[in-house]
Amino acid sequence: MKLPTFSDVRQAHKKIRSHIHRTPVLTNRQVDERAGANVFFKCENFQKVGAFKFRGAGHTIFSLPDEQAKKGVATHSSGNHAQAIALAAKIKEIPAHIVMPENAPAVKKKAVKGYGAHITFCESTLEGRESTLAKVVEKTGATFIHPYNDSRIIAGQGTAAVELLQDYPDLDIILAPVGGGGLLSGTAIAADGINSSIQVIGCEPEIADDAYRSFQSGTLQPVRRTDTVADGLRTALGELSFACIKEHVDDIVLVSEEQIIEAMRFIWERMNIIIEASCAVPVAALFHDKIDAEDKEIGIIITGGNVDLDHLPWNE
Amino acid sequence: MKLPTFSDVRQAHKKIRSHIHRTPVLTNRQVDERAGANVFFKCENFQKVGAFKFRGAGHTIFSLPDEQAKKGVATHSSGNHAQAIALAAKIKEIPAHIVMPENAPAVKKKAVKGYGAHITFCESTLEGRESTLAKVVEKTGATFIHPYNDSRIIAGQGTAAVELLQDYPDLDIILAPVGGGGLLSGTAIAADGINSSIQVIGCEPEIADDAYRSFQSGTLQPVRRTDTVADGLRTALGELSFACIKEHVDDIVLVSEEQIIEAMRFIWERMNIIIEASCAVPVAALFHDKIDAEDKEIGIIITGGNVDLDHLPWNE
Repeated sequence: MKLPTFSDVRQAHKKIRSHIHRTPVLTNRQVDERAGANVFFKCENFQKVGAFKFRGAGHTIFSLPDEQAKKGVATHSSGNHAQAIALAAKIKEIPAHIVMPENAPAVKKKAVKGYGAHITFCESTLEGRESTLAKVVEKTGATFIHPYNDSRIIAGQGTAAVELLQDYPDLDIILAPVGGGGLLSGTAIAADGINSSIQVIGCEPEIADDAYRSFQSGTLQPVRRTDTVADGLRTALGELSFACIKEHVDDIVLVSEEQIIEAMRFIWERMNIIIEASCAVPVAALFHDKIDAEDKEIGIIITGGNVDLDHLPWNE
Repeated sequence: MKLPTFSDVRQAHKKIRSHIHRTPVLTNRQVDERAGANVFFKCENFQKVGAFKFRGAGHTIFSLPDEQAKKGVATHSSGNHAQAIALAAKIKEIPAHIVMPENAPAVKKKAVKGYGAHITFCESTLEGRESTLAKVVEKTGATFIHPYNDSRIIAGQGTAAVELLQDYPDLDIILAPVGGGGLLSGTAIAADGINSSIQVIGCEPEIADDAYRSFQSGTLQPVRRTDTVADGLRTALGELSFACIKEHVDDIVLVSEEQIIEAMRFIWERMNIIIEASCAVPVAALFHDKIDAEDKEIGIIITGGNVDLDHLPWNE
């Protein structure tokens, strides 16, 4: 298994640069006071489709050979990855086939359709998704694009850290949430390539701690629960992302559901930005001293802002 | 009555530049598609204290002669102006006296106290505020700083448009909400000074249309209702801000409460930024064809993001 390298991340950046937003890096005095550190937020909630996922999807789709690309791309997802694939395919002017459960929220169906993707509905089980996807791929010849267990995806996700370190080269630590591990892998590869003394730490919900257990034990551990409020982090690590994490990540730390919700609201109220619960996981880790951050320069990748405003976690 | 000039705005910018955030300008494809125009949002919701008000307050307080400044500053407000005065006074290391009603939200009292200001409580009427303020000023010798009817405040607020036009010099139109008129005045003076062909248009709630009626009639008209959802726009124009608006503003347009709330939610959902209802007034004007914007480059000043997350207007 060949791991993606820093050179892959730099190539990915060249390939997507003209298609992505150069997202701003925000700071906030109240966050700094509470954290006892200088914190720099790389705001991928302002990225196209509202999430960093467009970096990896764009890189992968723009890298496909023309013969292969023209048959289209496919994935199963009802989240940010689906929208990212749909938009990247639209830009490349190739078909996108998205498999999603019948019961996916209407707003997510609408967003994917808005980018011109074809939706195939499936049963709301992993088997239902996978068998429907297999049929779509067989019928169309489309290329399946995995949301994180793919070198091209990982290289693309690493470009957010490249920009963050271009803007703030003196960071001591970069924090990223970990679900499937694509973002954390890309971030750690990028940081290692730029300056190996920068620590990269993954942050995970206590009740969805498969990455933590895998990192501690050295072998891939299964997911036990998928009910964390951080809905972007319910997936398991892949073989490839786990290998990258073992090679490049310095630590993985855990936070509680209550800490996540409180940190999410703190950021909404003080910074006036809308962040998904997943983004609040590193913030919570910082606020609750899971990170040795005192007086350090800390970068945090804010992953996305796709939130259902009718179901805010502090009202549920 | 001497109106502030573009030279005043430039001087103000020099004075405050090292103390303010250079706020980012964001764009969004879905907004552009809906508006049929290219829209550039100057995000003062990311300014210190979460609103453009820090520009004017900072400029005014940093301009005070030392002898006068050391006796402190005073204002009556429970909103963004109070926080802006409190923070600017803290930076200048002088006392700030804020008069606010007993029944002001706890979070606003806490924010002002957090900047080290002295709070004097008053009855929740205009008379109560003014008489309490007069007593505080008499007792302390502090300088009263009006939230908008002041040349220094207006010059400070104009600096947001200066930065917006530095970043995007080719704007055809700039939109700003109008309440007391400080921001609209400063914006129009700045735009006129930089390029007099840029149109500046004020946007106001239909049910709080004193600026519209004043602009149409040429004489200052009273406020009739103060129950608009755009709580930052409930105040009346002042003599000075009205004079600036007559001289420099091209038009004032009106939008309904429903249009404001819908535009506010649209921006939250698509742009992942938290904006106050006041900021949604220009957006609503654009979405409902109150502005001749087709294929033009439109700048919008996003004024602030101080919102009570427990009382969102689409749930009320």
